[in-house]
Parts: sequence; C-alpha cells; structure tokens
Amino acid sequence: MTIAYLGPKGTFTEIALSTYFNNEAVKIPKPSIEDVFQSVIDQESTYGVVPVENSIEGAVNNTLDQLLERDIYVIGEIKIPINQCLLAKNIQSNEIINVYSHPQSFAQCRKWINDNIPKSNLIPVLSNSEGAIKVKSSTDACIGPNILSSYYNLNIIQTNIQDFRNNETRFLILSRSMESVTSKSKTSIVIIPQAESKSGSLYSLLKPFSDNNINLTRIESRPVKTKNWKYSFYIDFEGNYEDEAIKKTLNTIQQSDNEIKLLGSYKSHN
Amino acid sequence: MTIAYLGPKGTFTEIALSTYFNNEAVKIPKPSIEDVFQSVIDQESTYGVVPVENSIEGAVNNTLDQLLERDIYVIGEIKIPINQCLLAKNIQSNEIINVYSHPQSFAQCRKWINDNIPKSNLIPVLSNSEGAIKVKSSTDACIGPNILSSYYNLNIIQTNIQDFRNNETRFLILSRSMESVTSKSKTSIVIIPQAESKSGSLYSLLKPFSDNNINLTRIESRPVKTKNWKYSFYIDFEGNYEDEAIKKTLNTIQQSDNEIKLLGSYKSHN
Repeated sequence: MTIAYLGPKGTFTEIALSTYFNNEAVKIPKPSIEDVFQSVIDQESTYGVVPVENSIEGAVNNTLDQLLERDIYVIGEIKIPINQCLLAKNIQSNEIINVYSHPQSFAQCRKWINDNIPKSNLIPVLSNSEGAIKVKSSTDACIGPNILSSYYNLNIIQTNIQDFRNNETRFLILSRSMESVTSKSKTSIVIIPQAESKSGSLYSLLKPFSDNNINLTRIESRPVKTKNWKYSFYIDFEGNYEDEAIKKTLNTIQQSDNEIKLLGSYKSHN
Repeated sequence: MTIAYLGPKGTFTEIALSTYFNNEAVKIPKPSIEDVFQSVIDQESTYGVVPVENSIEGAVNNTLDQLLERDIYVIGEIKIPINQCLLAKNIQSNEIINVYSHPQSFAQCRKWINDNIPKSNLIPVLSNSEGAIKVKSSTDACIGPNILSSYYNLNIIQTNIQDFRNNETRFLILSRSMESVTSKSKTSIVIIPQAESKSGSLYSLLKPFSDNNINLTRIESRPVKTKNWKYSFYIDFEGNYEDEAIKKTLNTIQQSDNEIKLLGSYKSHN
C-alpha cells in the first residue's frame, strides 16, 4: 500500500498519515496538495492524505477546491494535535540569533517567541523542513513538528510552544472510489447553487436538513471561480448517504435547482 | 492624511489605496495585516487598507480574525481587478529561465505558465516585491502587479496572465471610529454564539434576517480560537445599522444568547 501526502518529509501531514495507517504503508511526500490528489488519480498511490481544517486557522482552501474539481472521494478523517517545537543543533536556547520557519508556524507561536526569544531574527521560509535544513550554526534554530529532530539531526529545545495549547488539525484520507461504512459515520457534500443567488439562499439550502433532523457538523463557503462573488457550500453532517432521511434531504435540495457533489461517508473521528 | 496598507511597496493593496483615496494620502507600507491594524489603533495613521476577499481564492482569514480581535471599524470597501503581469529586464520573454513570485501568484497563473513558459524554473519567494528585486539578469522574470515596473525598473512583457480573467479582490478601509452613511450602504457584523452549538444553529441564526427581509450578501465562518471546532460567523447584509428592521433583527439574535460585534455600515462598492 502506497500513500501520497503533503510533504516534504517531516510535516504534520506525515504524522497524521502514520497515525491513521499505523506506519503500515509506503509514504510518498508530494510538494503540494494538488500533487497529492494527482498521485491518487494517476494510481501512483492507493490513498492520499491532506490537511482540511485547523482548529485555529480554519479551512485549508486548496483542499476544498480540489475536492470539488477532482474526481476523488473522502474515505476517512483524522485529527492530530499540532505541537510546535523549537529545534536547534545545541541544547542551549539563550544564544539563538536566527530562527527559520514557515510564516504560519511563526504566527502560531507569536506569544512564546515574544516572551522567550524576543531579540531573535525571524526568517520566513517556504516549509518547516526547509527551515530545518537551514539550521547550520549553533546560533540557528527552527520551529516545527518534533519529527524534524530525527530527520535533520536536531535537538528539541522546547515542545508545545504554540500560543493555543488546543491547536489541532483535521486531515482527510482520499481515494479513487467511495467506501461504504456501517459504524458511526459522517457525510461530506458540496452544494453548488445553479439559480441566481438571492436573499436567504443559504437559509433555504439549510431548511431541508433542519426539517429532517440532520445534525450539521460543519459548513464552509468557497467562491465559484467562474462567477465572481458567487459561492458553493461545503457541508458535513452526521449519518450515512444510504440513510433514508439523508437521501430525502439531498433530493429536496437538488429539486430546488442545486447541484450536489457527494464526497463520501466515513467514520467520524471525535 | 496618512494611510497604512499591506506592503511592501508595489502590492495590489497599494493600488486599492490609491484608487480609493485618489492618490491624496501619505502611504505607509506595513509588513503584515496585523501591523496595518496596529498602525491605525496607535494613531500612526488615519486609516488602514487590507485585503478581505478574493473572487477566486476566497476570504483573507488574517483580516477576518483581526476584525474580531481588535477595536477597529470598517468605513469603506473597494474592489479592484487583479491583473498579474510578467515582468523582466528585457522585452524578449522567450529566453526566461528563472521566474520569481509569491506562491499565490504562481497558482493564479498556472495555465498561462504551462502554455507559454513551461520550461522555466518557478522560484517561490515571500512577496511579489521580493521577486521583483531578485530579477537581475536578462534571463530572470517575475510575476506581479504592473506597478512593480516603475518601482523596480522592469519592463512589462505580458499583462493579464492570470487564469481567471475576472479575478478581483475586495479591500476594506479601517478606522478607529464608526462613520455614519446615508447612501446605499451595507453593514458588517460578527456573530459569536455563546450557547453550546447544536443542530441547525446556523439555520436559526439566519432566521431573523429572513423574517425581516434583509438581504445577506456574504457569510463566512471562522474558528473560535479558544474553543476547538466552534465557529463565529461574519455576515454582510444590505442596509444601515440605524435602520429599524436591522435593529430589530440584531436584537432578536442577541436575545438568543449570541454576542454581536458591529463592524460598521459603509457604502457598498458594486
């Protein structure tokens, strides 16, 4: 079994993959979210793993767009804690001059940096792994997941330096085909309104869910790229697409001139 | 009048600022969206200009988060077309080897790049202005707005190379105090549900707008950073916060244990 994931080696996505598949897979790092989808579509890999939402930063737009545009399904999800670490060649952290990291990691650790290493130069790079590679002298450090330590031979100086302790990211497992689930499941769909949007259009889209007592767990809007300032809606809800109440709800929505893309039903990770 | 904006010099935000204020202002570039908000709060500048939404890429999350967290108001908006250009020292583009740009600009021009300069090396940098500075030899080029040409002494080789011709970005004008408007206006608020969220909570939040015939123009959700997997809702709608129907709607929402932050009413830019 081969699994594509958002790389490079040492990303939080790799940790999510290893947790979900219990390390029983050949892992293929990809440079972008698009490349993970492409790898699954091209049958280079059996499954793909991409981030979809962070508890602090919100949705990963690139993943949402690809889910709509590509012929791919969701067969699972996993949430992992985002534990940002400060890593360096040496164990002393009081002499750090340059700190390398992705801008998002700097943003997530702003308070800790101000309190602990306020005089250091923060040098943004394009990935945390690139930051780890740049750590060369004893006054350099980088920020990122703990697995950077073993991949790039660095010491972990401090763990859990992110400002919000409860920082978590949710990842999706992608496949070329839908899988059926029997356990407690959730379903993901995208609704693309075809009619000209008007007052209360989202309100009326949500009405069939309310009428059929279906619990929504998530709603996210994304621009329709071919029509300015029009939106599609990504909706997650409890239950399986084979449930009668859900079939009825989706039928009602489609009958009101809305297109639905079913992304899949899968076991919910709470 | 001094106005802070998301820099560095030569960004689309600077073009938005110059268009909105007719070039009658001292412009202060800031390295981040947070710094623009801070400059207005510190009274270093009269107003601030930040991007809030792109017609293809969607919401600018950083701006949404700052609007909720900071003591600041919205007094205007402006939409400008995003015209990505290829710029270089020389006018010939068939010898380009290295192209520098922000990853988002590469993403917006993917099709044009594949069709026209498929063999070039795409080198991601942290801003389009940084890309312009890196253009040194005759085989280098960069991607970004046309004003990079005058700031960095480059020739525009091709204009409008973005994949979606209708690419536009909406910017907000920020102020320390609310301003009253009489012309055709819209209002922006954030709703922060206080009760435990349950099935149909967004549906019931939207009901008072529907009951009072208020046209929603935009709804966006963002994570509540202190509570995992809970969300606040950013809602734009037609009308002024002094209108009776709107006062009534907001009252109804507040009475159902929801906090509301009023961001302001301002002239809508269509």
